[in-house]
Amino acid sequence: MHAIIPAGGVGSRLWPLSRRTEPKFLLDLSGGGRSMVRATVDRLAPVSDGAVIVTGAAHAAAVAAQLEGTGVEVVAEPSPRDSMAAIGLAAAILHERLGDVVVGSFAADHVITDEAAFHRAVRAAEAIARAGYVTTIGIAPTEPSSAFGYIEQGDALGAPLAGRVVVRFEEKPDAARAAEYLATGRYLWNAGMFVMRSGVLLDALAELHPELHRGLLAIAGAWDTPGRADVLAAVWPTLERMVIDRAVAEPIAARGGVAVVPADMGWSDIGDFDALAALAPSPPALAVAAEGAWVHATRPVMVVGIPGAVVVETPDAILVTTREHAQEVKAVVDRLDGPLERLR
Amino acid sequence: MHAIIPAGGVGSRLWPLSRRTEPKFLLDLSGGGRSMVRATVDRLAPVSDGAVIVTGAAHAAAVAAQLEGTGVEVVAEPSPRDSMAAIGLAAAILHERLGDVVVGSFAADHVITDEAAFHRAVRAAEAIARAGYVTTIGIAPTEPSSAFGYIEQGDALGAPLAGRVVVRFEEKPDAARAAEYLATGRYLWNAGMFVMRSGVLLDALAELHPELHRGLLAIAGAWDTPGRADVLAAVWPTLERMVIDRAVAEPIAARGGVAVVPADMGWSDIGDFDALAALAPSPPALAVAAEGAWVHATRPVMVVGIPGAVVVETPDAILVTTREHAQEVKAVVDRLDGPLERLR
Repeated sequence: MHAIIPAGGVGSRLWPLSRRTEPKFLLDLSGGGRSMVRATVDRLAPVSDGAVIVTGAAHAAAVAAQLEGTGVEVVAEPSPRDSMAAIGLAAAILHERLGDVVVGSFAADHVITDEAAFHRAVRAAEAIARAGYVTTIGIAPTEPSSAFGYIEQGDALGAPLAGRVVVRFEEKPDAARAAEYLATGRYLWNAGMFVMRSGVLLDALAELHPELHRGLLAIAGAWDTPGRADVLAAVWPTLERMVIDRAVAEPIAARGGVAVVPADMGWSDIGDFDALAALAPSPPALAVAAEGAWVHATRPVMVVGIPGAVVVETPDAILVTTREHAQEVKAVVDRLDGPLERLR
Repeated sequence: MHAIIPAGGVGSRLWPLSRRTEPKFLLDLSGGGRSMVRATVDRLAPVSDGAVIVTGAAHAAAVAAQLEGTGVEVVAEPSPRDSMAAIGLAAAILHERLGDVVVGSFAADHVITDEAAFHRAVRAAEAIARAGYVTTIGIAPTEPSSAFGYIEQGDALGAPLAGRVVVRFEEKPDAARAAEYLATGRYLWNAGMFVMRSGVLLDALAELHPELHRGLLAIAGAWDTPGRADVLAAVWPTLERMVIDRAVAEPIAARGGVAVVPADMGWSDIGDFDALAALAPSPPALAVAAEGAWVHATRPVMVVGIPGAVVVETPDAILVTTREHAQEVKAVVDRLDGPLERLR
């Protein structure tokens, strides 16, 4: 399998830790001593024949610095065109070079604590992908979260393929519906991991999004030639912005072409401070009288009367919210303007 | 009138701004460019023939520095013995030197925005004090606060004395009772201002607290002699700890000897961050998306989902609470121990 790692998005629900200039995938949020993108590459190394990272031009040098010595290729997007164009470009380049190979796309800013379970899931997904399925790895849910999309599982594929047909994908549900899903035992969280043959992906794009397919093939065809820069500059801005779930996974699932491998591997997307707090408690010396609070600061923080408070201090800003309201941080950060716009 | 200004207490509800090493009366909380104790002295100058500040030995030098050029005398307490001993000592020293004069005690850490109204009230209180009453200045309440004690007014004293007899003092009531008090129109807030003849105060002490009276007279008798230090060291630690309200004002009120001058003069004790927030809004550039929040910080503070949040940053600590919970800060500060004890 060839790994494709789209590294885009700021992760502004984790502001002021993550910024446009230092997005979430460049941070060491789990405290493991490595940036999340480097941890992602290291985690994939045992189950892949190499990796391609697709990231914004502004972050290409920083990503390359993180990946020194890994031999990972960094593809710089001239501008953000969302995950379908990013993953599609990497897949098209690999297809151009290597023919029909299995590719697997994995986010650059998730945490997985049980790497052995992850590797088993990837190997199972790779076998299913070889059989022609677009294959996703679904996370066994541990709570009725409304922060994730859900995957409904159908029939087992049958030996030797260790997965199930996907009935459908569901966008982030409300809490009540999430609880219903959990009760059925049929639903998994959608962690945005997709493993498939490059040919299967490109054929699906040719059928469903022919203009995007044409554009990606044009860029991939010129990629390893002197014409790369010109073609990229001319074609990339014309590509339609789509996410891979909507562009490919959902329509293919509707005709029974998507499979899922369930996995229980200590996964977190660290999507907000509630998730980060669940992953790593704050040092007790910092959180004073703060029941359920999560504190990231350089000095003791006393919290009085705000259960589940979240306090994050950086050299240029302080965020105060609660774990319950953590999802709302992004909306406020996105509205920063005037002299505060520089803080985004 | 001779002003007596007890400057004790940390004001730990305003932590981390106020500390044992830099208590509230040394801070410039109203942003007027002067410490509160200096503002108090300046405010009293037009209506007094001098002032005596009674403060802890640890703060005597800092207070003296604040009062340079004012000619105010600083009396250093070897240890905290509460307001009755502090005010009683200053009154006894003045009585020893000057005979029976009117003295007025005023907290060192309150704010009064309408100084002309304050001066009118003090002059009225002084006239009533000359007639023999222990006289307090009561604040016209603006809300049913449960953060203050209340004074119930009775009959008018009759011309030329512009005040009323005090029926009784009431400790901090709960919110429901405070609302009842407000509705009657008969109650005032107790701001702890007492004006009386030194002889009236000392006679009351002789009757009600003879040991304290004896001790204070012993110290005052030695004050302007070479024996001061020895007598102070021997007697001061034996003095009973009492607050002037309980020790004198309440028992004298019970027999009709206390009068009150109502005043509406923009008074605040800045008793907690709710009161401070009401006095001085935080700079808008600091409080981002923070409805009703009050922020004291060196960098922008974003508050998400916590109405009325209070965020206070100092070089060694951060406090996060709400205006509603501001009264609870003291209890948490008082419990700081271990390595955090130094932050008090």
